[in-house]
Amino acid sequence: CPCPLPSGDTALSRLVRRLLSARRSLDLCLFSFSCPLLARAVQLLHRRGVRVRLVTDAQYMGLHGSQIGRLRHAGIQVRHDQHSGYMHHKFAIVDRRILITGSLNWTTQAIQSNRENVLVVEDAEYVKAFQDEFERIWEEYNPANYSFF
Amino acid sequence: CPCPLPSGDTALSRLVRRLLSARRSLDLCLFSFSCPLLARAVQLLHRRGVRVRLVTDAQYMGLHGSQIGRLRHAGIQVRHDQHSGYMHHKFAIVDRRILITGSLNWTTQAIQSNRENVLVVEDAEYVKAFQDEFERIWEEYNPANYSFF
Repeated sequence: CPCPLPSGDTALSRLVRRLLSARRSLDLCLFSFSCPLLARAVQLLHRRGVRVRLVTDAQYMGLHGSQIGRLRHAGIQVRHDQHSGYMHHKFAIVDRRILITGSLNWTTQAIQSNRENVLVVEDAEYVKAFQDEFERIWEEYNPANYSFF
Repeated sequence: CPCPLPSGDTALSRLVRRLLSARRSLDLCLFSFSCPLLARAVQLLHRRGVRVRLVTDAQYMGLHGSQIGRLRHAGIQVRHDQHSGYMHHKFAIVDRRILITGSLNWTTQAIQSNRENVLVVEDAEYVKAFQDEFERIWEEYNPANYSFF
């Protein structure tokens, strides 16, 4: 990703603007997160006092270029699965009110090279279904519930 | 995937029922398609006279278990990209009226093992955006436009 937060009216700049509109909470459920620009936007929200929670896939969080370590280092709460199947969602919920979802993994490759879609949905029924799924996963991936043997 | 078309009220059976409701057209834009059950549903529609068009990713269509060859063999029109980036969409449009999209690739692994989401959207504005993207891709991937050198 380019380093400055994007201006203009590209799909990426619209995505970043939607994220940066968060005032209270940002719930992220992301299979793969390697885009430094989007990580910077998330960190900015965290510094502003927005409550950021991030769920991700255990197998992908350690891959080269992953931003998960950097976000944890910044103090953002991250939880991940313990399964062999993928946590394959790729959605964000802003202020429990705006759902951003689609085919796009938050990776530089996807943003620069792929055909992708991102839907922005404010219909409460859809937002609630995803918010409920987020809360289920957040509880299920609570480290207090890990099994080690 | 299990072999019989699924009954009951699982997410997979609801997806199959939505697909089988097609009367005139089914437009498929799928990064990866290896689930034999979903391929069987698509073939059934083709045999019923529904116009099926399928766009897929060139790098994934040849992978082990891909259903693309079988669908082409059955007479279904398939087009694919010529790029190094992925054609990463995973959506279907039934009768130009119902959009089915989300994180789910149409693979056995995804259906059996992953956390995934599938949205069914009938709002005309959303359906049109995806139908327009489908038509753009369908034209762009027309074999008449391939460049070989």
